[in-house]
Amino acid sequence: MPYVSFLTDYGLADGFVAACQGVLLRRGVHALDITHLIPPGDIRRGAAVLAQTVRYLPVDAHLAVVDPGVGTSRRGLVLVTPGGLLVGPDNGLLEPAAAVLGGVTEAVALAVQPGVPATFHGRDLFAPAAAALATGTPPADLGEPVDPATMVRLPPALARVRPAADQEPEAAGPAGDKDQAGPRELEAEVVLVDRFGNVQLAASGELLADLGLRPGGQAEISVAGRPDPRASVPVGVTFGSVEPGELVLYVDSAGMAAFAVRDGDAATRLRVAPGDVVTVRPG
Amino acid sequence: MPYVSFLTDYGLADGFVAACQGVLLRRGVHALDITHLIPPGDIRRGAAVLAQTVRYLPVDAHLAVVDPGVGTSRRGLVLVTPGGLLVGPDNGLLEPAAAVLGGVTEAVALAVQPGVPATFHGRDLFAPAAAALATGTPPADLGEPVDPATMVRLPPALARVRPAADQEPEAAGPAGDKDQAGPRELEAEVVLVDRFGNVQLAASGELLADLGLRPGGQAEISVAGRPDPRASVPVGVTFGSVEPGELVLYVDSAGMAAFAVRDGDAATRLRVAPGDVVTVRPG
Amino acid sequence: MPYVSFLTDYGLADGFVAACQGVLLRRGVHALDITHLIPPGDIRRGAAVLAQTVRYLPVDAHLAVVDPGVGTSRRGLVLVTPGGLLVGPDNGLLEPAAAVLGGVTEAVALAVQPGVPATFHGRDLFAPAAAALATGTPPADLGEPVDPATMVRLPPALARVRPAADQEPEAAGPAGDKDQAGPRELEAEVVLVDRFGNVQLAASGELLADLGLRPGGQAEISVAGRPDPRASVPVGVTFGSVEPGELVLYVDSAGMAAFAVRDGDAATRLRVAPGDVVTVRPG
Repeated sequence: MPYVSFLTDYGLADGFVAACQGVLLRRGVHALDITHLIPPGDIRRGAAVLAQTVRYLPVDAHLAVVDPGVGTSRRGLVLVTPGGLLVGPDNGLLEPAAAVLGGVTEAVALAVQPGVPATFHGRDLFAPAAAALATGTPPADLGEPVDPATMVRLPPALARVRPAADQEPEAAGPAGDKDQAGPRELEAEVVLVDRFGNVQLAASGELLADLGLRPGGQAEISVAGRPDPRASVPVGVTFGSVEPGELVLYVDSAGMAAFAVRDGDAATRLRVAPGDVVTVRPG
Repeated sequence: MPYVSFLTDYGLADGFVAACQGVLLRRGVHALDITHLIPPGDIRRGAAVLAQTVRYLPVDAHLAVVDPGVGTSRRGLVLVTPGGLLVGPDNGLLEPAAAVLGGVTEAVALAVQPGVPATFHGRDLFAPAAAALATGTPPADLGEPVDPATMVRLPPALARVRPAADQEPEAAGPAGDKDQAGPRELEAEVVLVDRFGNVQLAASGELLADLGLRPGGQAEISVAGRPDPRASVPVGVTFGSVEPGELVLYVDSAGMAAFAVRDGDAATRLRVAPGDVVTVRPG
Repeated sequence: MPYVSFLTDYGLADGFVAACQGVLLRRGVHALDITHLIPPGDIRRGAAVLAQTVRYLPVDAHLAVVDPGVGTSRRGLVLVTPGGLLVGPDNGLLEPAAAVLGGVTEAVALAVQPGVPATFHGRDLFAPAAAALATGTPPADLGEPVDPATMVRLPPALARVRPAADQEPEAAGPAGDKDQAGPRELEAEVVLVDRFGNVQLAASGELLADLGLRPGGQAEISVAGRPDPRASVPVGVTFGSVEPGELVLYVDSAGMAAFAVRDGDAATRLRVAPGDVVTVRPG
């Protein structure tokens, strides 16, 4: 039974998801819903949730539609990757998931049939394309090949290790040795806040380890642009590493650096939302 | 694999939907959920979402339960149409969808088995009936035939073209020629506001064209009962026809006259909700 | 096609449910979602919704994850009952459903494979276990047997019949005859409030009948700790037994004593929430 995963910002109240699923089902294709509650037009969140989820979904294609540009001349795309096929608008939504799946090896701009209504491409363009792919149509049959380099991409989320900002330059040791000798810190954007208030950063768990931040250690954190004093946070394996109500820095189930409050809400505690930048250093 | 579509006001938090789906699954029938977020008891919205969606759903029957009268003596119905079968309460919920599917050719009042609890007919009456239909039971086996003319119907949503309200009668040209010669306007009720704030009117796209309102033109609109001055709104093919933040009048993906704000929320902009009446004229 | 039911507090926005469903689907197992909108960490509500729904679900196993203790040393369990298998954390979530399914005849503590991440046991521990059970793996193969008596249990919700609280003791008749001769009342905790505002008590419909509260009768109710005067409420078969806007005491579709307001919200009317205690007596 062919399956496609399905992510949109359509919500669950209007029947839009069902109309697309009906189009799929007419070709014998079933949907595995990722979410339909991406905030309207929030491409960045759609891309992050999709990228975080695709590797767990044994489907024939991934269909994603967060598409504020529907009705304009933006392209529809099929992306071919070593780990699977992606279908959706050319607005940056698909690329992070494509990277997780091994990178784009081929891209096709979907041909729009004459007479297709211009306002519901999920139902009238993308779902039919996903159904065709899931039932064996080669991507090249769905449109014209395009150079993956021409795809719209989101600006990458900030995640970098740098010399600690408030260190005196002379404290950094001999020139040329600065990166390894001096204190360093991680500067990373908040990418996702989940239902439990867990705060995922754009930085992988490896970056934490590079900084020497390992379970049992302690981190000093601050939020960019805030006058708040730095806070000291334990580094743990899980939120179970701390007492109820305590904040912890850990590597989450997607392999990313994250904050949680055990039995609580870290986003509220830290007063952060996606796009905020957090600085983390051993401390 | 037999399928029924499924629309309710049960919400997604209480397990009510699952209990019904379990009843279906016990007979080998799968559900394609339309929505379960119809506001409790809002028959009119349930009817509009159902009518707008059914034509895209390749299922064996449509099961819809928005049923504030459960526990009273209201009838349960099976409606037979050229385009498929509908099951639900006799309160007006099914009729607009039946019209979309070609009109009611046969109606059956569901027999209620003794001992069926009176408060959860979705699970105990309608889901079993839908499962029976989807697995080949003839509608007539489920109860007594009834005259479709006896069905409860919702008052139709207002949608009419009339001579423009504030024109002097003498300006309308020779008597008998008034309808075609004088200025006319569309008076139409708001039927649906979707997650994106798009505002669907009860008027089909054809009514707009009849009035001479075509892409590239301009409309003057007002909301009944509002002292606001008339607003001028471009007519477009899609929200892509205007700049971000601008309002547009267009024909939506269901073929109905609608307002949208590109990258914005037309219902908030116009301060309208379902039931409000909007007047539209060329201008 | 093997099926598992699926209940969590994961919400529908983050893709967590899909990741688990992908794990199931990889083994050819489908999910019948009960709900994913249990408030985060609300084990008691999760247990109540699960217990109320399982008997309608013809599935091969029930997978339930409301698990504030994930990342701690709490056990994962498989419970074997005459009515089916349950999988989830050892925190009281499963036990009421197990009771509905006939009681626990065997319990297994899930073995955790080395390297399984500690923060997403739904995806990495419980879904694989449920998929294994649904495809025929014997429960004993998934871990070590444990004594069901060692399972964590929720404190039972209050539901008892007692002599009416404000009766003079001498009014109760001869000693030894007190229970049957004197006025009695039901004291019961609110267990669930549903989307419609219906208020389900921990007391079965049989307890109402024991008290002589039958359709056509009248009850006097009060809420523990409230200075409000007792209210008189009709006892009905359904909310259809009273006029729109009226409160009624009835036996709900789960067989439990409940309050409803016809076309209204009983929880708001009574100002009660789960955990509040209501006293009911004939009156």
